[in-house]
Amino acid sequence: MSTEAPVSVRQKTIEETLTANVQASFANCADPRLKQLMQSLVTHLHAFVREVRLTEAEWNKAIEFLTAVGHITDDRRQEFILLSDVLGVSMQTINVNNEAVGEATEATVFGPFFVNDAPEIPNGGDIAGAAPGQPCWIEGTITDTYGNPVPRARIEVWEADEDGFYDVQYADGRVSGRGHLLADEEGRYSFWGLTPTPYPIPHDGPVGSMLEATGRSPMRASHLHFMVSAQGLRTLVTHIFVAGDELLKYDTVFGVKQSLIKDFVEQSPGTPTPDGRDLGHTTWARTRFDIVLAPEDSQ
Amino acid sequence: MSTEAPVSVRQKTIEETLTANVQASFANCADPRLKQLMQSLVTHLHAFVREVRLTEAEWNKAIEFLTAVGHITDDRRQEFILLSDVLGVSMQTINVNNEAVGEATEATVFGPFFVNDAPEIPNGGDIAGAAPGQPCWIEGTITDTYGNPVPRARIEVWEADEDGFYDVQYADGRVSGRGHLLADEEGRYSFWGLTPTPYPIPHDGPVGSMLEATGRSPMRASHLHFMVSAQGLRTLVTHIFVAGDELLKYDTVFGVKQSLIKDFVEQSPGTPTPDGRDLGHTTWARTRFDIVLAPEDSQ
Ligand SMILES: [Fe+2]
Ligand SMILES: [Fe+2]
Repeated sequence: MSTEAPVSVRQKTIEETLTANVQASFANCADPRLKQLMQSLVTHLHAFVREVRLTEAEWNKAIEFLTAVGHITDDRRQEFILLSDVLGVSMQTINVNNEAVGEATEATVFGPFFVNDAPEIPNGGDIAGAAPGQPCWIEGTITDTYGNPVPRARIEVWEADEDGFYDVQYADGRVSGRGHLLADEEGRYSFWGLTPTPYPIPHDGPVGSMLEATGRSPMRASHLHFMVSAQGLRTLVTHIFVAGDELLKYDTVFGVKQSLIKDFVEQSPGTPTPDGRDLGHTTWARTRFDIVLAPEDSQ
Repeated sequence: MSTEAPVSVRQKTIEETLTANVQASFANCADPRLKQLMQSLVTHLHAFVREVRLTEAEWNKAIEFLTAVGHITDDRRQEFILLSDVLGVSMQTINVNNEAVGEATEATVFGPFFVNDAPEIPNGGDIAGAAPGQPCWIEGTITDTYGNPVPRARIEVWEADEDGFYDVQYADGRVSGRGHLLADEEGRYSFWGLTPTPYPIPHDGPVGSMLEATGRSPMRASHLHFMVSAQGLRTLVTHIFVAGDELLKYDTVFGVKQSLIKDFVEQSPGTPTPDGRDLGHTTWARTRFDIVLAPEDSQ
């Protein structure tokens, strides 16, 4: 893809002069960071318009699209975040703010379904509650990038049920598929949750129409959300994904990273559970997620 | 301004891989133009996020800003167009769609105040109507890029009154400061209007707040709008600006081009008018705008 428009030198000068004039208009901005942001934004937006030789009809369509995104957005639905997500802008922002450090576990998108004050469960407890799905035992350790265990790290976890819905998507006020726990003195943690299943992002609005028009799926790969925090270390917001999920390649918000794909090993009915829990005649699964937290000031 | 982020090779690979994955997600788009637009947009948006190392707080603020732009936008107010205007994106789109051809008159932004079916006036007539302001005689010729006159070209003109308002901004339904006329058989035209005066774009919304936060003015340089059309020639949407206007350098939508700045020569009270009109003891002004239309197929 060329960034050089096939135009005359004179035309090129006209276009470049305009971009320079717009940049110059921010010269008196008292906040140097805001000035940098606006000037860089202008540079890249203009480069886009020039590269594709945007037609006036296409510009009109873009205005209409953004208007529709604005009008469907309210206190309960944030279509601009959805748009940022499906363009990979959210994930790129996460990347930029969580630079790779040693073996530190990679971050991914936060998503819209986190809730403050999710119930506390004991280490080894159950976050699934009444949510339907296959029971899944998740365990691991929390260490820093020097390999030291992180005692009493706080672990928030949340996930959709097997129907693809988070508790907050139901109207009945239920709390399930979420909770927080503390790692033990050796940085070990474990809990019962559900084997993750895929779900679509809300796709009945303009962003959904865009995905359809461009031949893209609205589905997210199966995942389980983590947020892990401990004093002096960088808070980690991430997911784990299920190895073998065919949606791993198409996750519509680009949250998948190789290092976050885990084997969820299915267990036959009757297989003894790690904590002696009796699951009767149902299958269950187990996986391991060892978490490495970056130093706080790394980024 | 560097486009290269100061990050490790490993971090750079992570960021570039994401951008490539987002581009690849549009691989199955059946419409090749839409595919090109989305892939280019993604490239440039990601380049922006990476270049400025956008923080999550800044990303949140951008989402809030766009939400506010969406919520103030309705049938009567289009804040997304305003945003496009003040970032020079509208003007760059005009540039791209009106490539320089020979001596063809340059185009500029259309603006929100054009009205279909403005009154027809005779060549030499008056478009000001009851709008307050200094009378101004505008005359010129319309030719093609070979210098041939363009007989009976259609000329639409519209402008604000001396208080900075277009007729449609008043609630009383008045029609003034606008009209259309036809050039004569030799491509000559003339009409009475008003000497243009400056006005602000609507700046009581999020775009106005952005202008204020960045130390920019909401003012447009004084101007008179033209739209000129004739069979077989490219329709020209443009303005003329007033030489000496101190806002020429700061026009907030970047519509000014050197070639469109004209001398509006003030005439003492009593100076004979070109058509014998008696203006009593008021001053008046006159200017000349010779228009050259590009061939229709020139982009
Ligand atoms: Fe999720
Ligand atoms: Fe105007």
